[in-house]
Amino acid sequence: MTIAGDDRGLLLGDGLFETLLWSRGALVAARAHFNRLGLGCCELGLPTPDPDRFVGEAVDAVARAGLRETRAAVRITWTAGSGGRGLDRPSDPLPRMLASAAPAPPPVGPARLATASVRRNEGSPASRLKTLAYLDNVLARREARLAGADEALMLNNRGDIAGGAAANLFWFEGQTLVTPALECGVLAGITRAAVIENAHRLGLVVWEVAAPANSLSDATGLFLTNSLIGVRPVDRLDGHPAPDHPLVSALARALEPSRG
Amino acid sequence: MTIAGDDRGLLLGDGLFETLLWSRGALVAARAHFNRLGLGCCELGLPTPDPDRFVGEAVDAVARAGLRETRAAVRITWTAGSGGRGLDRPSDPLPRMLASAAPAPPPVGPARLATASVRRNEGSPASRLKTLAYLDNVLARREARLAGADEALMLNNRGDIAGGAAANLFWFEGQTLVTPALECGVLAGITRAAVIENAHRLGLVVWEVAAPANSLSDATGLFLTNSLIGVRPVDRLDGHPAPDHPLVSALARALEPSRG
Repeated sequence: MTIAGDDRGLLLGDGLFETLLWSRGALVAARAHFNRLGLGCCELGLPTPDPDRFVGEAVDAVARAGLRETRAAVRITWTAGSGGRGLDRPSDPLPRMLASAAPAPPPVGPARLATASVRRNEGSPASRLKTLAYLDNVLARREARLAGADEALMLNNRGDIAGGAAANLFWFEGQTLVTPALECGVLAGITRAAVIENAHRLGLVVWEVAAPANSLSDATGLFLTNSLIGVRPVDRLDGHPAPDHPLVSALARALEPSRG
Repeated sequence: MTIAGDDRGLLLGDGLFETLLWSRGALVAARAHFNRLGLGCCELGLPTPDPDRFVGEAVDAVARAGLRETRAAVRITWTAGSGGRGLDRPSDPLPRMLASAAPAPPPVGPARLATASVRRNEGSPASRLKTLAYLDNVLARREARLAGADEALMLNNRGDIAGGAAANLFWFEGQTLVTPALECGVLAGITRAAVIENAHRLGLVVWEVAAPANSLSDATGLFLTNSLIGVRPVDRLDGHPAPDHPLVSALARALEPSRG
């Protein structure tokens, strides 16, 4: 699989992607992923893909990779297509779709977080979308790995908590579930939304907040979410133990039926 | 020219680029561009290209496009190469180089600027580099075009002036030349550096500052710089006339000998 060397996705990060879980022979939450991609296209001013093609290419990628019987990650990439030189898009952009699949075994054990120096850009709509311009996340993850951790804790330019490099972040303050608000430069995660909905069903209060980094010093039950890991507890933050909270496993269990 | 569909430049914006001017049959400031790319590689943790290959591919791209006798823009793209799924790079990344060339006639007349809502991410080293994750700049330019302007005025998350979407910005306060400091989330422009050096030669005082957007209300002689346009005066900012300053044309002239 190759792509044209003048594609704006390659040259400028001009495009979007979705990462879907393939589990028990089916795509999980395909409609939610398609809808998010469509909203992203509106925000960026790109044409939206056809929903049948979105699902069709995802299923084909799984088959092509021989992963029908495997837990897999499917990535759909939607670029702005070929363009002339420079930042300005052609008047009538013709996006390209690429699909690929890879095995995605569930994560082993809890995650260790390390605070990265690279900040999320709360002043750009791209910080709330899965765009092809994901370098800040790559750099934050790299910092975390160099610090011996699995994932980065990213703050925004105000110093407020945004989340992981490839995951949303939640924690408990007493019995209240807390997560950074989208306006902090946070990806509108599909699993994030499902966890909030499940928490409401369990009778929990959920706060979406702008919280400085030191809010986590009294937090319990830190966990990460994304489409591939579901709910993954965090047991260390910057080398310090992160205490558990009994409701984290309840939230993880509540998510399972929706994951195939 | 195509590139592998699993290239991290395409999938994540993981890579860098340089845009060089080809003028009077030669590359302008090739060594400075190569050095900047090398510094960017250090910052991102990528291997650096070979300098002879950098120049060779640039010259070949001009020849391939039939532009030897033309004023042209040469783009060298340096991606992180193919990688597995997710944010983590392979342990031994093998970058790819792409080169292309396109005609680049000098800009016609002064530029109109419009302030964009999309902010530059001063909290990421990527804001000071030409990376493949250039979507914020694409979005800012798009806003400017929709407002009837040629280029965006981008602020950072603190509300300080950063520059254009694809250009650095300068202005005069009296006889002092002013430009946003790199830590405001500003690309370390090669023409920016040349203009500062020339200004010192002309006996001017140059301030690199963190300046709020309203600093421009009393400014004169706004101008943009990049490798393709050199010095381009700005005559309108958000629809209001931007007064000229006699030293702008002196700075434009001072730059010309270094541009082939």
